[in-house]
Amino acid sequence: MFPYIFRYEISPHISVHLECNGIFHSGKSSFQKIDVVDSVDFGRMLVLDGVINLTERDEFVYHEMLAHIPLFSHPDPLKILIVGGGDGGTVREVLKHEGISRIQQVEIDREIIAISKKYFSSLSSSLDHPKVNVLLMDAVQYVRDIKEKFDIILIDSTDSVVEQSEGLFTVSFYRDCLNALTEQGILASQVGDISFDTGIVLDAFNKLKEVFPIVRIYLAPIPSYTLVPYSFTFCSNVIHPERGLGLSRFLKNFQSRYYNAQIHQAAFALPEQLRREFEN
Amino acid sequence: MFPYIFRYEISPHISVHLECNGIFHSGKSSFQKIDVVDSVDFGRMLVLDGVINLTERDEFVYHEMLAHIPLFSHPDPLKILIVGGGDGGTVREVLKHEGISRIQQVEIDREIIAISKKYFSSLSSSLDHPKVNVLLMDAVQYVRDIKEKFDIILIDSTDSVVEQSEGLFTVSFYRDCLNALTEQGILASQVGDISFDTGIVLDAFNKLKEVFPIVRIYLAPIPSYTLVPYSFTFCSNVIHPERGLGLSRFLKNFQSRYYNAQIHQAAFALPEQLRREFEN
Repeated sequence: MFPYIFRYEISPHISVHLECNGIFHSGKSSFQKIDVVDSVDFGRMLVLDGVINLTERDEFVYHEMLAHIPLFSHPDPLKILIVGGGDGGTVREVLKHEGISRIQQVEIDREIIAISKKYFSSLSSSLDHPKVNVLLMDAVQYVRDIKEKFDIILIDSTDSVVEQSEGLFTVSFYRDCLNALTEQGILASQVGDISFDTGIVLDAFNKLKEVFPIVRIYLAPIPSYTLVPYSFTFCSNVIHPERGLGLSRFLKNFQSRYYNAQIHQAAFALPEQLRREFEN
Repeated sequence: MFPYIFRYEISPHISVHLECNGIFHSGKSSFQKIDVVDSVDFGRMLVLDGVINLTERDEFVYHEMLAHIPLFSHPDPLKILIVGGGDGGTVREVLKHEGISRIQQVEIDREIIAISKKYFSSLSSSLDHPKVNVLLMDAVQYVRDIKEKFDIILIDSTDSVVEQSEGLFTVSFYRDCLNALTEQGILASQVGDISFDTGIVLDAFNKLKEVFPIVRIYLAPIPSYTLVPYSFTFCSNVIHPERGLGLSRFLKNFQSRYYNAQIHQAAFALPEQLRREFEN
């Protein structure tokens, strides 16, 4: 028997109970409560305000899908902006693309980086790479004021219901992102859970549609998040993701555990009832 | 607050807790314990020996994927054999294919049919269709002795760990199935959960490979079963599922909630670490 149960809600009437060995860290930053929990099956888990943010067991699905879908959709991505993602997992995946010249990361909470450096070194070690520049500030302000253009913007934030992330789910922020993208630029973001309520995803989707000509939902199962596939959005001016314009760079020895060329296409296939909701 | 919690295990260290309004039925047949539980989020659930067999909320994913993937892979399926599936959900989906001439169902437990007629009429009403013939017997014996050939065999059983289903997960049963298929015939079966242990799926996969030239795994998320996509197998002599030989019959007004032509292709895309395990 293990001494702790970490309990999280899938819906108001469904909860998942994980047996845990213990708690490595429990603290509070200026922005959020941060816990690091040692679960039996998911390994170490980063928990923000009581919500699982990542686990050792399945973080690779989230980070690979957030990074590689847009990067392999683009013919030649050089400059990447990452909003949030202070744990370093998204940077780690982006660095697998050898052509990248510069990664600008904008994280609001320095404590996330410190905790990741202490407890999640397989993610955070990528933050020390010479191509990576980390800025500690609010990305809403950063994107509003920049003059630089990026090929890819990845929004690796907490959910829209979290106070410090609210501003990242607005039409004005999306307009500033579009403005910070090159002509062939792509924005990808994590959106949320569509298991029992499509409301949050539909809301983000509709706001993105006000700004970007091409907006697509894509899916991946992240067992520690929800019971059904988790959703991301792909947004661009001109590039359709299923063309996989960069897939010729996907080599046999590209290191991935979830992503591959078949998954690239398959992730955009929506179940019929979702397709009707999102493609009409 | 709801008075009951239905608890099921995803792994020895992860459990899911569903709030329930009550229990409609709790009994025992000659083969298994059968409960019908009224859950808040999944609706009515058929529970066999403590394991969720189907729920009103997501049975459509399971039944559509078990039926339509093989049926739309075949150019002209006429005669269908269903092993198990006494609830009627698979028959309901097969009947959506207008060209079908005959459906032979072989269910070992008459009580499943009786319970489904009482509590799951949206599934069981299909069993009364004139094209459907229901036999109450052990499918292992039925398939060993038949002379008739079928275009499609669908194995809609409980899991291999259940005593009365053990015989359905053997090389000799698969050989008898191959023998009962036409040259272009296809067998599809539910296999199991690959969330925390690929052992059961790999075992079934390897046995099927001993018998069928073409064996493929396909996936669909069934939230009441597991945290990650559930697996099915597609087996045939000559037909590759991704050709979708029958997809021209898939019309705009074909009634489905999960399946569509994109999902048909996407279901066969395996995450990279599974692909390495199953495609090498």
